[in-house]
Amino acid sequence: MTDNVQVSVLGLGAMGGALAGALVKAGHQTTVWNRSPGKADDLVALGARNAATAGDAVLAGPLVIACLLDHASVHEVLDPLAGELAGRTLVNVTTTSPAQSRELAEWADRAGIAYLDGGIMAVPHMIGQPGSSILYSGSAEVFERYKPLLDLWGTSTYFGEDAGLASLYDLALLAGMYVMFAGFMHGAAMVAPAGVTAGEFASMAAPWLSAMTGSFQGFAAVVDGGDYTVAGQQSLEFSNLNDLVAASAEQGVSTEVIGMVQTLVRRQIDAGHGQEGFARIIESIRNSPADM
Amino acid sequence: MTDNVQVSVLGLGAMGGALAGALVKAGHQTTVWNRSPGKADDLVALGARNAATAGDAVLAGPLVIACLLDHASVHEVLDPLAGELAGRTLVNVTTTSPAQSRELAEWADRAGIAYLDGGIMAVPHMIGQPGSSILYSGSAEVFERYKPLLDLWGTSTYFGEDAGLASLYDLALLAGMYVMFAGFMHGAAMVAPAGVTAGEFASMAAPWLSAMTGSFQGFAAVVDGGDYTVAGQQSLEFSNLNDLVAASAEQGVSTEVIGMVQTLVRRQIDAGHGQEGFARIIESIRNSPADM
Repeated sequence: MTDNVQVSVLGLGAMGGALAGALVKAGHQTTVWNRSPGKADDLVALGARNAATAGDAVLAGPLVIACLLDHASVHEVLDPLAGELAGRTLVNVTTTSPAQSRELAEWADRAGIAYLDGGIMAVPHMIGQPGSSILYSGSAEVFERYKPLLDLWGTSTYFGEDAGLASLYDLALLAGMYVMFAGFMHGAAMVAPAGVTAGEFASMAAPWLSAMTGSFQGFAAVVDGGDYTVAGQQSLEFSNLNDLVAASAEQGVSTEVIGMVQTLVRRQIDAGHGQEGFARIIESIRNSPADM
Repeated sequence: MTDNVQVSVLGLGAMGGALAGALVKAGHQTTVWNRSPGKADDLVALGARNAATAGDAVLAGPLVIACLLDHASVHEVLDPLAGELAGRTLVNVTTTSPAQSRELAEWADRAGIAYLDGGIMAVPHMIGQPGSSILYSGSAEVFERYKPLLDLWGTSTYFGEDAGLASLYDLALLAGMYVMFAGFMHGAAMVAPAGVTAGEFASMAAPWLSAMTGSFQGFAAVVDGGDYTVAGQQSLEFSNLNDLVAASAEQGVSTEVIGMVQTLVRRQIDAGHGQEGFARIIESIRNSPADM
């Protein structure tokens, strides 16, 4: 990769604008386009060129970044430009499902477009800052060639040729995040009747849950090993969560959040695995009762 | 507090043994007792004194630590010793519910026993190591007098005179932890069909979720402020989680984990709060439909 890449960014929502801003500030010759006007002004002031049409933007250089509303928008904007994109590189960081990413990769392959799919694990103001992480899958060659440019946005991680992998990781990490948020809110709701503010609880819960992510590798080793009976684990019987459900009810809050975890635990206990390790709850999620 | 405290530990399970070990290693004159024999041998080798009865242990000094099986065990062991305990200090770190802790505090008060309740946020091998955190509530005077000794076990945090507070915090933090574990397992189950090991997913999920605990204070500020319409929040409509539920189903895994969060979100959207911030899901947990 040369130091100065001719790169085009399609879509200047909050995220697309942040991505384009990082590129133009790093000195890349950046062309931008947005369906509705007025979004490019700040970027033009920084040195970006505003293209009148998406087609003009695509023709401006070898590398096109798409950061559009959704999968349908990508097809709507790019389908008429397949000829112009042929021989060029498309990095699509639009939020799509794994199946949609794979479909776009196949569409690109048929059109002779090199394709890399990205999943952004950051909010717009984090782009280019510590903590911003972008997940990629699809063409390894594209990832290697443009990695210095991609690294301007955050830590870049490549998962493999399957274009759906980055999106799958993205959604799996987001799912973990939303579930953790619900757990935090449940704890905050439990302590509230005792006069504890959510802020006070957050100051205990943030370092505690952060420290407890240190348990993931231990659970993972058991899951990957496939033997839930290995020594040194907390058993499902010990983790029946009866005390947590009772305390939630005692505090007058809904038991559905912690009850969800108890359901996963009970399904394994009921199937005769009560003496096995807590990591076995993944078998309740895998939705394959025959394996339990 | 003198440097050398005459302290007794009742209950030598894995946790009680770890607590006693930290005391004896720090040079405190430690007397230990356990209902069933043979648990004290390692501690005696380190310099602890083994008491023949719980009563002998109580009489050995001014400070008694109880780390027994449960609330019933505490009463079973200590009720006959109320007279011996009068004028002494009891620090009870047995796992109990907030209501049980308060009941024990009242029992101790009637018997003239100074009472401090503790909740241990650590597993036995973490005692005395970085990351070990012990929560206390009850007598502020006891906490202040013995803090240097309590600090041998981990970071000591005092929450107030209400003896049930430490236990309530303990259970609320544990609830958050178990829910987070379920979220991690859900993510691991989602990526597994694509050939991603749980260990590979853990190496992404641990730093990601750890970083995302940084969002707790922002949510808490909204909750404590009581106005879910303040600017700069991600709306409930935006966070409807449809894509995460769909991707989970697409991967063939159960949707009940992420579906639990979606239920909390939907209840607020259905009540007309879709444009308000995600923090509002706490209103779904507070179990008070009239407030929604």
